[in-house]
This record gives sequence, C-alpha cells and structure tokens, in this order.
Amino acid sequence: MTIKLNCDLGESFGAWTMGLDAAVMPHIDQANIACGFHAGDPLVMQRTLALAKENNVTVGAHPGYQDLVGFGRRSMNCQPAEIVALMHYQIAALDGMARTQGLELTYVKPHGALYNDMMARDDVRAAVMQSIAEYHRPIALMLQATPQGDQHRAEAKDTGIEVLFEAFADRCYDDDGKLLARSKPGAVHDREKMLAQVEQLCSEGTVTTVSGNTLKIDADTLCVHGDNEAGVRAIEAIRGVIEA
Amino acid sequence: MTIKLNCDLGESFGAWTMGLDAAVMPHIDQANIACGFHAGDPLVMQRTLALAKENNVTVGAHPGYQDLVGFGRRSMNCQPAEIVALMHYQIAALDGMARTQGLELTYVKPHGALYNDMMARDDVRAAVMQSIAEYHRPIALMLQATPQGDQHRAEAKDTGIEVLFEAFADRCYDDDGKLLARSKPGAVHDREKMLAQVEQLCSEGTVTTVSGNTLKIDADTLCVHGDNEAGVRAIEAIRGVIEA
Amino acid sequence: MTIKLNCDLGESFGAWTMGLDAAVMPHIDQANIACGFHAGDPLVMQRTLALAKENNVTVGAHPGYQDLVGFGRRSMNCQPAEIVALMHYQIAALDGMARTQGLELTYVKPHGALYNDMMARDDVRAAVMQSIAEYHRPIALMLQATPQGDQHRAEAKDTGIEVLFEAFADRCYDDDGKLLARSKPGAVHDREKMLAQVEQLCSEGTVTTVSGNTLKIDADTLCVHGDNEAGVRAIEAIRGVIEA
Amino acid sequence: MTIKLNCDLGESFGAWTMGLDAAVMPHIDQANIACGFHAGDPLVMQRTLALAKENNVTVGAHPGYQDLVGFGRRSMNCQPAEIVALMHYQIAALDGMARTQGLELTYVKPHGALYNDMMARDDVRAAVMQSIAEYHRPIALMLQATPQGDQHRAEAKDTGIEVLFEAFADRCYDDDGKLLARSKPGAVHDREKMLAQVEQLCSEGTVTTVSGNTLKIDADTLCVHGDNEAGVRAIEAIRGVIEA
Repeated sequence: MTIKLNCDLGESFGAWTMGLDAAVMPHIDQANIACGFHAGDPLVMQRTLALAKENNVTVGAHPGYQDLVGFGRRSMNCQPAEIVALMHYQIAALDGMARTQGLELTYVKPHGALYNDMMARDDVRAAVMQSIAEYHRPIALMLQATPQGDQHRAEAKDTGIEVLFEAFADRCYDDDGKLLARSKPGAVHDREKMLAQVEQLCSEGTVTTVSGNTLKIDADTLCVHGDNEAGVRAIEAIRGVIEA
Repeated sequence: MTIKLNCDLGESFGAWTMGLDAAVMPHIDQANIACGFHAGDPLVMQRTLALAKENNVTVGAHPGYQDLVGFGRRSMNCQPAEIVALMHYQIAALDGMARTQGLELTYVKPHGALYNDMMARDDVRAAVMQSIAEYHRPIALMLQATPQGDQHRAEAKDTGIEVLFEAFADRCYDDDGKLLARSKPGAVHDREKMLAQVEQLCSEGTVTTVSGNTLKIDADTLCVHGDNEAGVRAIEAIRGVIEA
Repeated sequence: MTIKLNCDLGESFGAWTMGLDAAVMPHIDQANIACGFHAGDPLVMQRTLALAKENNVTVGAHPGYQDLVGFGRRSMNCQPAEIVALMHYQIAALDGMARTQGLELTYVKPHGALYNDMMARDDVRAAVMQSIAEYHRPIALMLQATPQGDQHRAEAKDTGIEVLFEAFADRCYDDDGKLLARSKPGAVHDREKMLAQVEQLCSEGTVTTVSGNTLKIDADTLCVHGDNEAGVRAIEAIRGVIEA
Repeated sequence: MTIKLNCDLGESFGAWTMGLDAAVMPHIDQANIACGFHAGDPLVMQRTLALAKENNVTVGAHPGYQDLVGFGRRSMNCQPAEIVALMHYQIAALDGMARTQGLELTYVKPHGALYNDMMARDDVRAAVMQSIAEYHRPIALMLQATPQGDQHRAEAKDTGIEVLFEAFADRCYDDDGKLLARSKPGAVHDREKMLAQVEQLCSEGTVTTVSGNTLKIDADTLCVHGDNEAGVRAIEAIRGVIEA
C-alpha cells in the first residue's frame, strides 16, 4: 500500500486567508479540514470541501480546542466530557456539510494542542477515542506514528475504532520517536534530508533519529504543509519520491 | 391532527443557565435546540438532546446569527451565501449529535433576528429555504403562520422542502397577522386571553386580532416559553386546553 | 495645513496576518488601530502601537461591531446604548494600552459597517458622538467628508466633541458626495486618476464626481490602504503629491 | 485596619444573568469586575460600575483567560507575553470605562484559572506582576494570602507593584495554606464554621487547618460570594462579625 499525504487545510477564517489550499489540494490524498473552533468558518469549510471534491481528495475533520486567537495551539485543561462534546460538535458540523456536497468524512485528526495532548496524555487520548467510538457512524482516528503504536492500536481496538498513523516528512525524530522540539537545532529538515526521510519511511518503515539511530515508524500517511510556495514545492517533491 | 407545542430550549451557555428545560420538556412535543451561535454549546446541546430523548420529544435545530452577546436578536446584514453556510453548519452539528444519541432531527426553526428576517425579507427566506433544500436529507422548515401562509407554502414547494407553521399562544396579533410589537399595550396576553386564543386556534383555526377582527391562522404547532415557573405553568394549562 | 494620511492598521488576528503594517507605517500620519471586536487582538494591538511609536505616527481607535467572522463589515441592528458601550470598551482598551507605551490616543474612526451606519443613520451617528462626548477625556471623531459636513460639524458642536473629516484618494464620488458603490464601473480609481483626485483635493478642496461635476469636499485627512505592495506604493505616490 | 470584603461581580453576559449583584453590592468594599474575556460584556461592565458607584464600592479589574464557554476556569498554556497583553487589554478596557463614570480602578484580581496559575506557577505570577508594573499608572495586585506571602511581597517589591492579600471565609485550608480541593469532604464550611473562621482571621490573623493546626494567614480582604440568596445572607453575617 502506498503511503498517503495528508495536509491541514481550510485554516482561513472570515476575511483572513491562510494556506495555499487550491495549490496544495491537487497533490495530496487527505485533507484535514478545520471545523470552526480554532480556524475555519462555515463558508471556508464549504469552499474547502468543494475543493477537495474537485480534486478527489479524501476529507477528514480537524477539530481543535475552542481557542481562535491562539489557533488551537495552547493546551487547555478540558474535562474528558468537554473533549467528547467538542469533538462531536465539530465532527458533526463538517460531516453534515460534507454529505451536503456528496462527500463522506472518513477520519478525524485532532489539531494542534489537542493533538499534542492526545499523544502525551492517556486521559485526553481516551476521551478522543471515546468520542469517535460514540459517534453515530464509523470514522477513523489519525494519530502520530510512534514506538507506542502497538499500545495505541490496542487502545483503539478496545474502544472499537479504526486508527491511522501519520509520520512527518520534514521533522527530525528523537530516539523516543517524538519530534525534536522546533526550538532545537536540526528540528526541521532541509529539502534533501526531508526527501531522504520520506524515502526511508516508504522503503524501510524507519527514520534515522537525531542521534543517528534507526527507529521503526509504521506510518499510513505523511503530514505535509501548504502554508507557502516552498511548502507546495516540497509536497510535489515528496509525491515524486513516493511514486518512485 | 392535534396541534403541537414547540419551545426554544438548550439556551444555556457555559456557566450560564437559561430556561427551565427539565421542567418544560415533559409538556412539549417539539424542542427547538440552540446550536452554538447565539446560545448553546456542545455540552448543553448534548444534555438537551438527552433530555428530549428521555421525554420522547421531537428535536429540531434552532440556528441563529453568530451573535452570542446579542443572543441572536440583532439583525445582521448577511449575504445569502453566508446564511446558507451558517444554517448548514449549525444544522449539521446538531444533526450529528442527535444521531449520536439515536435521535433524528426532523425540522429547523430559525432563531430570533434570523427568524424575523426570514418572515420579513424574501431574500433571507429564500436563502433559508435553499439551505434546507440543499441539506443532505429532508428536514422541514418551521415558519410563522400568517396570512401569507399560502405564498410561503408555494415557495417551499418550489424549493422542494416541507414546511410547518407555528402560531403564538400568548401574543396578540394585528390585522395583518403580525405579532403586535411587545412595546405596545396588550401585546402579551394574560393567562385567560392566552388560553382563549389557544382554544380558538384549535377549534376554529383563527385568532381575534387587536382590533377585534377574526383572522385565519393555520398552525401546526404553538410556540410556548419555558423561561420561568409561570411559563411552565402556562404550558401545562395550554396542554390542558389542547387535549380538551 | 497639509492634508494628513490615515490608514487602517492592526487588522491581523492571532495566527492570521493582514496588511503590510510595517511597510505602511513610515508613510502615514494617522494609524486607525483595530480594537479586538472585528480584528486585532491584545498582542496585535501592542505591536501596532509600538510600530506607530517608532514611526511617530498619531494613533486612533478603530472600533467595530462585534463580528469577527464578518470583519465588522455586516451592519448589526444595535441599540444606541449598545453602541455607546461597545465604543467605550474598545476605545478604553486601546487608550490604556497606548498610554502604557507612552502614546496618546487622539481620535476615533469607527470601522466598516459601524462607519457606514454612522454616516447613513442619524441615530447611530448620535450614539457614536454621545459615546465620545461621555468618554473621560477629549478624543476627536473622524467622519467622512461629505456635503453634509456642516451639519455633522454642528451636531458635533452640540455634543461637545471635536471632529476630523476624511476623504478617499482612490474612490470615485457620486454627485451626492457618497462613494460610488464598489460594484459599479469606475468605482475604484486607477493610479493616475487617484493621484489627480489627491491633487485636486489638496489644491482646490474638491473632487470631480462620476458625472463630471465638481463637488466641494473639505477633508483633513485622506484614507489610504496598505493591504498589499501596490497599496504601499500608492501611499508613497500620494505622499509625493501632497508634499509637492 | 478593618479587613475588607471583596466579591466577583459583573459576571453576567449578554442575555445571561449571573449573580445577585444589586443585592450584594451594599454589603461589600471591593467589586472584582469581569472584563469581557471569561464573563462580562460592555453593557454589563457599565451597569456594574454604576452599581459600584451608587454603593461607594471600590472597583477592581477581574481579568481572565479568553475562554467564555469555560468561564475562564480552564488553565490555558499561555506565553508570558500573551498574559501581559491580555491583562493590559482587559484592565485598560475597565479602567477607561470606570473613569468615564468618575471612578478609579485601584486593583486587579485575576480570575479563575489565571488566578490559580498565578498562585501555582512562578512564570505566570511573574507575567501578571510585570503586566501591572508596566501599566501606565499604579494599580495593586490582589493575591491569595498564603504562607508564601513574604515571598510574594518581595517579588512585588522587586517588580515595583503594590499587593493586597485575600483570604477565604468559607473554605477550609490545608496545612500548606492551600484551599482544600472542593472535591474533598469539609472543603466548604457551613455557616457556623465560616463565621468562626472569619472571627479568627480578624482577631488573630490565623486559620485552623483541616488537620487542626493553626496557620498564620495575613489577609487584607476576604473573598465572599454573591451567587444566590444564601450567599448574600452569608455576606451580611460576615459583615456583622467583622464589625463586632
């Protein structure tokens, strides 16, 4: 099975534009669409869904904490019941809008701080998984591919949900399988290292960590970024590597 | 067919409580549930749906303009496309959350200024009808029962949607079939006049207007209010009249 | 007295950037700074104030309706008391933040739909003027320069506030002194016509209207736009005309 | 010096009412007024200031995290610069509105999770103190009176700000001087224990902790609650103890 490319899209809001969605969409497989809490608004969601449809891109919900000014990047100390409810609301809003365009939402990838909290905290991950298990039809959850993948797979099986794992093309991994903090030197790969990492992920299912070790990373999809022209060109190059 | 009772519910928000939802729910047929733009939040919506389920009450979406501090009561000059999108978003959010509890959303009643604008302006009503026609499954639209009912029914037929008409139990009508402005004397009936109006609506399908004329008002449902204890007792009395 | 240049700035929000504030600031006299209701957030306001200080630019408040997703461009049917309160809140927030950087707020220019409503409706203009008259220290109100200037000046005198009038460099006027709607042909001048209008405003205090008439427009300041590189170059050219 | 009574007020929002402000105001010395981020809106702030003025109550700002649906009770992982900016914005908004009514804001008490984070985390407390030190005129900071009071006093002195310390009338303390978590038995005193704690705080400057130890608590003011009728009666009783 070929590795997929996923990208966060629909992150404009009102009069503010973010991301080169129209340029990115032709090159990706999965669009993670913001649902209005950290980015996106009803019109933006509608347009992003239409763009995905035109390009035969699979659509997923990209729900976040309700923190517009912080773009969902600030961890909020939510109760599990609050997480379940905010997941249901955002997923349902996008789901119904997708169906209205004849599209089917097939997965959910939490955004920003909610994603980070899901990966770092058992209680948050349990609430996220529970929200998806309770949802009225099956939707997969996208998690980060880490050495804890088997544990997460087991948790998902217990909860009764499907999971997808994503790796990062342009980010350096540490020996624990975490992404090196952006503040650290070497955290973000240059083009050459990025393409090498993609090739290694595709052919061997591993990455070379910051300390030079080889780490197994079992990924279904790669997260790519379409914020600017350089990002779009990087996606095209990554696509070339995958297809090669 | 017996006339139904509908009530705006789920209008709490975060730490703020509004309405005696638990006291009202056993006495009504249709719950118009706020969807987060003018009132309601994901947890409130979830609780209100659960309450409706317990009481076998039909659930409808109650979408409004995105004006939380104004409670959706201030008209906003939205473009038709904006109205379609905000309707889709709010309906879809509640629809998916309802299905998650095994409930089916069957109608939509716009809230506050959006409702008033829908009744007063052809372009707004067209946008509202279009939004419902485009939605991925059939949902009825609840409008105010007025002498323009036949026109509205024809518009709905042209758009391909079902409609429901509501009358008001406690409000005095003018000769044009509009509600007398709350600022005018006699705009809100006392208990006796309210019950007489309900009886007349049920038995004859008419109301007596402020000037004493008889006006045909063809209503499927009556709008009642559960803001306080007096409102709840009024609902019980109205129920008594209908069943008699 | 030389005509001034004013520009709407500080219109970014959270992760979203809008406008080339740093490129524009050196070329203008007056910065209309968004106050958080339609655009701007505390950090953006702080940075915009610092940028104004560096460039010795006079700062004004640019309050709007509380409609973030609509960027304050949709008219909202607010009560006079609501307008007074939202003006006070936004002016005060920016005023205190300006003083904290050693700057003094000297004027207020309402934004978007609030500005349009102020020019079109007596009740809204009265509420805006009242809010400024009540504020705890004198601040001028910036209005559009129109043939009704004398009336507005008289209203301001009665209310006890100072006023400033602005004209538009790049917009074609109709014979009533209104801006031609953007949807109409010729509504937005090309560079040549824009500079000719600036020269005429500076030297003769008039504009040539869409029908070729000459209309007196008594302006203290010109509204310019810094949304993109072309806008910044236009401001530089306008500055050249004014200084010539 | 007599111990003061402070109370969180102005916590209504739009159509939602919270707290018995009019009933509480005559019995307190200091009103902590919400500033619009977690509660309060411009009209509510205006009304609350007017009520404080009528009752000769000192007014303070009660700024919170920007989390309306969570009522500012959920910790958010903000950067120090974000905390400084949100403090400045909210303080300035209330400050200017207070001056517009001829009132002077004299202190700031952070709300909810921001208050808890300030007490628990050195970096948050430093950012809060810095924001007040930078503000364009002196305002005191209200902190919780704890055994760390001397350290907090020293930090305030270093930052160049004044501080006030508050104790809680109705909450049981643990031996570290923290409030016993509300989930624990005995966390909230009954009326008799509350009044005994007030008397002990006033006469001896100590509290008896959950384990029976005596702990020095050096408080300038007591935090009281006006959420309901019982709260108002408790405030009257506390006032009686203080004056006795």
